[in-house]
Amino acid sequence: MTAIVSRETGLAVGLRDKLAQRFGPRFTTLREVCIQHGTDEFRHLPVPPDGVVFARSTADVVDAVTLCRRHRTPLIAYGTGTSVEGHICAVRGGLCLDLRQMDRILRVSQTDMDASVEPGVTRKQLNEFLRDSGLFFPIDPGADASIGGMTATRASGTNAVRYGTMRENVLGLTAVLADGSVIRTGGRARKSSAGYDLTRLFVGSEGTLGVITEITLKLHGIPEQISAAVCPFATIKDAVDTAIAAIQAGIPVARMELMDETLMRAVNAYSKLDEPISPTLFLEFHGTAAAVEEQARNVGEIAAEFGGTTFRWATSTEKRTALWQARHDAYYAALALRPGCRGWGTDVCVPISRLAECIEETRADIAALPFPCPVFGHVGDGNFHILFVVDLHNPAEMKLVEEANSRLIKRALAMEGTCTGEHGIGMGKIRHLEEEHGDGVRVMKMIKSLLDPENVLNPGKVLQI
Amino acid sequence: MTAIVSRETGLAVGLRDKLAQRFGPRFTTLREVCIQHGTDEFRHLPVPPDGVVFARSTADVVDAVTLCRRHRTPLIAYGTGTSVEGHICAVRGGLCLDLRQMDRILRVSQTDMDASVEPGVTRKQLNEFLRDSGLFFPIDPGADASIGGMTATRASGTNAVRYGTMRENVLGLTAVLADGSVIRTGGRARKSSAGYDLTRLFVGSEGTLGVITEITLKLHGIPEQISAAVCPFATIKDAVDTAIAAIQAGIPVARMELMDETLMRAVNAYSKLDEPISPTLFLEFHGTAAAVEEQARNVGEIAAEFGGTTFRWATSTEKRTALWQARHDAYYAALALRPGCRGWGTDVCVPISRLAECIEETRADIAALPFPCPVFGHVGDGNFHILFVVDLHNPAEMKLVEEANSRLIKRALAMEGTCTGEHGIGMGKIRHLEEEHGDGVRVMKMIKSLLDPENVLNPGKVLQI
Repeated sequence: MTAIVSRETGLAVGLRDKLAQRFGPRFTTLREVCIQHGTDEFRHLPVPPDGVVFARSTADVVDAVTLCRRHRTPLIAYGTGTSVEGHICAVRGGLCLDLRQMDRILRVSQTDMDASVEPGVTRKQLNEFLRDSGLFFPIDPGADASIGGMTATRASGTNAVRYGTMRENVLGLTAVLADGSVIRTGGRARKSSAGYDLTRLFVGSEGTLGVITEITLKLHGIPEQISAAVCPFATIKDAVDTAIAAIQAGIPVARMELMDETLMRAVNAYSKLDEPISPTLFLEFHGTAAAVEEQARNVGEIAAEFGGTTFRWATSTEKRTALWQARHDAYYAALALRPGCRGWGTDVCVPISRLAECIEETRADIAALPFPCPVFGHVGDGNFHILFVVDLHNPAEMKLVEEANSRLIKRALAMEGTCTGEHGIGMGKIRHLEEEHGDGVRVMKMIKSLLDPENVLNPGKVLQI
Repeated sequence: MTAIVSRETGLAVGLRDKLAQRFGPRFTTLREVCIQHGTDEFRHLPVPPDGVVFARSTADVVDAVTLCRRHRTPLIAYGTGTSVEGHICAVRGGLCLDLRQMDRILRVSQTDMDASVEPGVTRKQLNEFLRDSGLFFPIDPGADASIGGMTATRASGTNAVRYGTMRENVLGLTAVLADGSVIRTGGRARKSSAGYDLTRLFVGSEGTLGVITEITLKLHGIPEQISAAVCPFATIKDAVDTAIAAIQAGIPVARMELMDETLMRAVNAYSKLDEPISPTLFLEFHGTAAAVEEQARNVGEIAAEFGGTTFRWATSTEKRTALWQARHDAYYAALALRPGCRGWGTDVCVPISRLAECIEETRADIAALPFPCPVFGHVGDGNFHILFVVDLHNPAEMKLVEEANSRLIKRALAMEGTCTGEHGIGMGKIRHLEEEHGDGVRVMKMIKSLLDPENVLNPGKVLQI
């Protein structure tokens, strides 16, 4: 992590003075703070902003946005920095607006099973808060991301197959637009036919259309019983076919995760386990005790039809944790395959009928690459990931990865899939968005120019403007 | 149905000639056809267009839109005419674009549980087609509406509590924009983080942002078992509290419908039944035989806690139909309360914690009105309806209804609800949309002006432009 992209210019003096005046010690241009705010989770080299403001209120956000707009200076909203497509890289310099101090849980309704939170609340913080209420917020992208960032990137994760993604779980939000106006979209009603769906326009807009300062979320009841199961298969196809059959049978599996042999081998080494080295499904069932038992039994029978004869399931928390250990350790186990290197992750999502084929073709395609490339996925959704374990400073490796990624996306698009199931576009997939959506991207650009004519909000992300 | 709003102008001669040339006998200005295309399901007096084109392809739609734009003539997309807020009324004249002949089911995938259809396909047509596939399309707004119209109005209905609304069930679509360009949004992947959610922008746009010419839908597995139950309660609150407790317990009830005493009395008279005259819940359970039995038993126990001691449930189709007879007959039973009159329907949706209170206050408010006002609702969503049975030609009655509707909406908004859960804005609730969304309406108007600067697409609906 030594190389840092640096630029010539900093913040204009006029802007710097006004930010200092308005935000006092909550504004900084300290190099270390800027670097930290320009560093994301995965592959992108740090691209630090020229300054950081720590916002505490919607009014703070309005003032920061307004000042930046007046000075035509980019503004990048920041949650926890756990996004993975360079969303927070200050590619055109400017101000980072750190929202982590906006971390209040504003309201929880047990009866309505909803909550309103500030954007800096993290998902684990929210679930900790909810623990005694019988409710939980299910979306789990892995990292302890902020709800604001998860909303902005349309995050999902391991249990989207049952509970949906941020698209389905955000009821409404407050956003500060580039012109400094504040709008509230959606509301607390579970459904509404009142006008254009502005909520969904901001969900997934990656900070380019507005800064989200409040989010109203659906919550879900903590299931009476949670049980888990693990099952190795001879082939990826057998594992995927099991998932397809379970979905078609209407079994409401809460999690359905696939890990390939490379990753199982890594996990065995990392966590000192002795799991079979073959494609493995990790499952989780939520419901009443009777429902969970029926679900697990039914999936077990389906798995057996596809050769998954060593289906193991467990209802106790300890056993469940033990079964899922491999899945939980996967990321670090993969990095341990090549110490000192970083994970360069990508994801695509295809119709589930094409999933096995897409994964198999991809594995054949990347088999000869000179670094580890474990594959894993949320198979219930048709979504899978490759984690290239690479040396970010080795241009030859980066070229190989870029090319493999492009081939992966071309393959997914040819199978009527999408260039990203849950990572987002950021700066990494702008070209692929155009491949996928063609003339739709023209409409996206029109909307961006309408709402942010001076291109102040997170420029250089999602769209080439 | 005698009074018809008539206007001075017709289609410009130049446009008429070009439409005749392009569409031949599929273009008509016959008065009877125009009147039929300006007549909606509920309360609005017919406002016929000046001509009708019957489209058969996206190319037809492109040409009709382009010709209308060149002549600055309104174009109103038409599905089955079953919308209820005046969506299809040609309030500024112009051309009706009838999409019923675009009724091909283009593709069904059993494995992926999705389908692509043209906009004129109706929901019953689709389900008929799917019957032997083990799949079904769940959204049921009552009428046999077209999928295009349901998409454009963000329809939902009785089983949204389990399967979601059109918002959750449209994966992607093709739309013809006002400039004649054709865009495809979304796709077949179950989830995607690729760019702005243009799909959701068109879902619920009521024909004002584009004409939808193809829709890709999620399908669902036909449940192994369907069972139904009916349970009368002493009060609305007891019935709603039963629904709340069932949802909180995580019981995946497929339908949860409430009918008030007025409607139960009407149904007894109309269908010669002998149901108790009290607030009644109609429930439906979907799942495996074991799951359905567990669900029904659990809801029965909950109902008993709230005084619903005569909970009856049935798994056979005949018994199920008999139990649901009252609910199916409700609309006609309500109209029969006052022969010769029409139904003037409205709906709101509130957080479920406020639902009983909202319904009770509303019933007290409308109790003195000199015409029947039955109340019913999809209580799992917090959504309820009033059907005012009125003489549309009596200005005094219309004034009373308008006022009661305004009070209803004010009440729902004060309870953090929405002015319409599923009917849409159309021409009937434009003012209420502004009450609900304030500055958000400004952004909606900006988007409308961006995509349709000449206000050609269904002008006078959703927004006051």
